[in-house]
Amino acid sequence: MKKIAFYGKGGIGKSTTAANVSAAFSRGGKKVCQIGCDPKNDSTRLLLGRIAPLTVLDAERSKKGAALSLAEIAHEGYGGVRCIEAGGPEPGVGCAGRGIIVALERLKALHAFDDVDVAIYDVLGDVVCGGFAVPIREGYAEEIYIVSSGELMSLYAANNIAKGVRRFAARGVVKLGGIIGNGRDVAREKELLEAFAARLGTKLIAYIPRSAAVHEAEIHRQTLIAYAPDSAQAKVYEELAAAIEGNKNLVIPKPMAFEELEDLVESYGN
Amino acid sequence: MKKIAFYGKGGIGKSTTAANVSAAFSRGGKKVCQIGCDPKNDSTRLLLGRIAPLTVLDAERSKKGAALSLAEIAHEGYGGVRCIEAGGPEPGVGCAGRGIIVALERLKALHAFDDVDVAIYDVLGDVVCGGFAVPIREGYAEEIYIVSSGELMSLYAANNIAKGVRRFAARGVVKLGGIIGNGRDVAREKELLEAFAARLGTKLIAYIPRSAAVHEAEIHRQTLIAYAPDSAQAKVYEELAAAIEGNKNLVIPKPMAFEELEDLVESYGN
Repeated sequence: MKKIAFYGKGGIGKSTTAANVSAAFSRGGKKVCQIGCDPKNDSTRLLLGRIAPLTVLDAERSKKGAALSLAEIAHEGYGGVRCIEAGGPEPGVGCAGRGIIVALERLKALHAFDDVDVAIYDVLGDVVCGGFAVPIREGYAEEIYIVSSGELMSLYAANNIAKGVRRFAARGVVKLGGIIGNGRDVAREKELLEAFAARLGTKLIAYIPRSAAVHEAEIHRQTLIAYAPDSAQAKVYEELAAAIEGNKNLVIPKPMAFEELEDLVESYGN
Repeated sequence: MKKIAFYGKGGIGKSTTAANVSAAFSRGGKKVCQIGCDPKNDSTRLLLGRIAPLTVLDAERSKKGAALSLAEIAHEGYGGVRCIEAGGPEPGVGCAGRGIIVALERLKALHAFDDVDVAIYDVLGDVVCGGFAVPIREGYAEEIYIVSSGELMSLYAANNIAKGVRRFAARGVVKLGGIIGNGRDVAREKELLEAFAARLGTKLIAYIPRSAAVHEAEIHRQTLIAYAPDSAQAKVYEELAAAIEGNKNLVIPKPMAFEELEDLVESYGN
């Protein structure tokens, strides 16, 4: 089984990318489970066509200790993708990191991942605490992919995430699988992302050009794979899924100093 | 003294907006302090021309209990703006929410805000826990501004933040000051944001059109106020600062149900 996690700066397109990759894997005949690890519960929306009706933590609270079944919290999305949202506390109170820990433990006990070919964790942009590192730290995910544009602050966040991966890679099975470029019309963006990935000791596993089609699919509450399966952009996601499937280039990343990163970005005119 | 906080979805442009508003206030003769509440420490970068050299929590750790002076952690930025970054734990470990609490308590003890006209808190996009609600909850900020584009998921995050504000407004001094629209080329975006604000019981206090000039200023590590002070876009930020200064329309927001929000966005063709 492939166990992968997507990380990246808030707003960079992680959930859109994760949902399209899940859909692409499913279209290729794989049994997929996507687990949203963000209190906003919006990771699986494009697969379900709506916000997931019940999260793991919502179900936990409403059951008050009574047994929870997988059917209650696993929602079937496009192509049979199993869609799960960890959930979180009410906005502004409680500890969301602790929530992720509880939700993932519960899912493991319910064997939510045992019968799938690919498990994809889509994790909150700002990895603010140990809780959000749990998919990395506790071996839920074994391959980390960092989504980034060529914008300095996106690369800065990606580099910070690489620091976290390095820390846990040293004492576990987790490795960095690569950088997924999500285009934002930055000058020489693909080349910059390739250079950035090389500095970290990894590769740019895909470069997804900015696309109006993806936005149009989102307006229809769908992945592009579902909305325009034969489009060129859908092919980009299918190639990404194939590249992840065959990826043997798993590394312990070497993060950069901020000044070094800034110089790199500047040398590309950004 | 004005005590305000900016919240909004990750990647929506909070820090860019906060830095430009701080610069605009400063240009208007006000003494300003901007406090970044995000472990990425990147809030004040455009005011300083670089990432702040020392955060409150970094200083705390290096001093190991010895007395900390305000001069060590307050960095002078454009127009004399006092720039402070709360800081955070190492990526992926520890509790960042707890870090914000400690940092703000320390700043209060150091009288970091006592001599300023405007204190601006720029808070991490994903308000994942009580720690990041501290600027709202403990009365550090009295007026909350939510930055949002017309994109559904940005409005969804804004609506969640309004839920948090409502919770704390009911038992404290904090109120919602308005929505700041940050343009993302969404169809009928300004009208949609006005309708959204009205539903929450507040107003769209500014609509900042998407601008290549802001991106160009960022490449030069500056706010637009510093880089192109006479540009039309700089005027937008100055008008926003003036609107905040004179704002008497402070409300307890009425958040929407998700379905209601989705219908609203759909009715604008998005």
